[in-house]
Amino acid sequence: MTISIVGLGLIGGSLALDLRANGFATRLIGVDENPEHTRIALDYGLVDEVRSLAGACMAADIVVLAVPVGAIRSLLPLVLDSLSEKGVVTDMGSTKGLIAREAAGHARRKRLVLAHPMAGTEYSGPKAAVSQLFQGKAAIICDAEHSDPEAVQKVERMFKSLFMRILHMNATEHDLHVAYVSHISHISSFALALTVLEKEKSESNIFNLASGGFASTVRLAKSSPRMWRDVFEQNTPHVLDVLDSYIEQIQRFRTLIAEGAYEETYALMQEANDIGRILK
Amino acid sequence: MTISIVGLGLIGGSLALDLRANGFATRLIGVDENPEHTRIALDYGLVDEVRSLAGACMAADIVVLAVPVGAIRSLLPLVLDSLSEKGVVTDMGSTKGLIAREAAGHARRKRLVLAHPMAGTEYSGPKAAVSQLFQGKAAIICDAEHSDPEAVQKVERMFKSLFMRILHMNATEHDLHVAYVSHISHISSFALALTVLEKEKSESNIFNLASGGFASTVRLAKSSPRMWRDVFEQNTPHVLDVLDSYIEQIQRFRTLIAEGAYEETYALMQEANDIGRILK
Repeated sequence: MTISIVGLGLIGGSLALDLRANGFATRLIGVDENPEHTRIALDYGLVDEVRSLAGACMAADIVVLAVPVGAIRSLLPLVLDSLSEKGVVTDMGSTKGLIAREAAGHARRKRLVLAHPMAGTEYSGPKAAVSQLFQGKAAIICDAEHSDPEAVQKVERMFKSLFMRILHMNATEHDLHVAYVSHISHISSFALALTVLEKEKSESNIFNLASGGFASTVRLAKSSPRMWRDVFEQNTPHVLDVLDSYIEQIQRFRTLIAEGAYEETYALMQEANDIGRILK
Repeated sequence: MTISIVGLGLIGGSLALDLRANGFATRLIGVDENPEHTRIALDYGLVDEVRSLAGACMAADIVVLAVPVGAIRSLLPLVLDSLSEKGVVTDMGSTKGLIAREAAGHARRKRLVLAHPMAGTEYSGPKAAVSQLFQGKAAIICDAEHSDPEAVQKVERMFKSLFMRILHMNATEHDLHVAYVSHISHISSFALALTVLEKEKSESNIFNLASGGFASTVRLAKSSPRMWRDVFEQNTPHVLDVLDSYIEQIQRFRTLIAEGAYEETYALMQEANDIGRILK
């Protein structure tokens, strides 16, 4: 199968690696507006060739849009227009609602399969590509009823070839859930990094004192601002909703500690411990 | 050397494992008020024998207090009283100021070396003990000028035998820095867990959608409420100070996103990215 990957970053590059390794892709075409990324993708053998967006869409059985959600939104009309008759396009975006609404009017909407693989790292760009990034993770397919069943099947086969678990959801549900289970983690981590950077003027203190706990909580603060800017723009109401809940929880801790209510603080932490049981 | 470890949990148990493996300890005595913990410590071979607190203190070259900081505070007078003439006691507590102030009046203060190894995991109890937990991490020694130089050297030799880096600091500085580099990470993680647990009534949603990013940010929410209750009690002013800075940073994100100021949000994330350079 010919797979065209638009956006040769962490997600696009990692997909390319695994789809070639498992034989699902027999030919990989890459597209990226950044010439440095296409050069690296060719040098590293992530893709076989680089083409223009329209050329890559025409030649592909599946086009994968692995660019920030703002770029997905702007590229999608041209991509749908350029697809071959049997071609399918799927996007890897972290938000779904706005993309779904804007695609709704397109004559070839049924060739689009909205998807979101729940996988990533804090790094970006083609050099961040790693194999087995997707293994065991969830691939969410949204609004499948608006896509041709055969297009959905093709995309699901791609995800299953990576040993992903397929979940179905509508786009609105998706955007709400990911605000809670993914977007807020990033904001809490960015804010934590800023707090420490502002207070600890001495970099050596941060470096010397940072334990594994701090490193893991602050890990996501290394994430791509370009990617997350677009996510926050497209998911504003849900992100604000979860931010308000989060601030409320932080305030609960602040109030209890300020009041010397340490037993109540203890009880709150015990409640929070339950996350360990669920994630196990 | 005979090492008595008071508190056979994650820290005490992990110390026992490595100090035996590297030959620093020739005899390990364990103390724990929880009979289940002493049984496991003996079964797993973490310690050679279990004794009463006073007995363990009398027999030891070094007594290590690896219990929550509230218990360190209450046990310390008896421990100092029970030490042999050349015995040394060191504590592994995450806060130092209050313990230092309370120990100041003790006749044998100079046999106490205040320490804090910047290492841990989110798990607790003797079954959580792991080898090489301390390797490459910082061991902070506080207020060394109030301890006998020979006692400090003995404790430093113990940490160095674990390949730790020794840092010196006064107790007040210590408590401020760790509020920023460790305590706030835990509160942010506990609060994140509560936010998600409250909103996502369906456990399967959390389980299915949780990606690596969420898992790492929420990891510390599995930590011991007993340990952290005491830390927050003993470090209240610094913890409130850092909580206020953190809430302010979260509010900055909230305000910018609510106003649609996505470019400013982008700039804020770019600033936060700097943490990656420093932690490298």
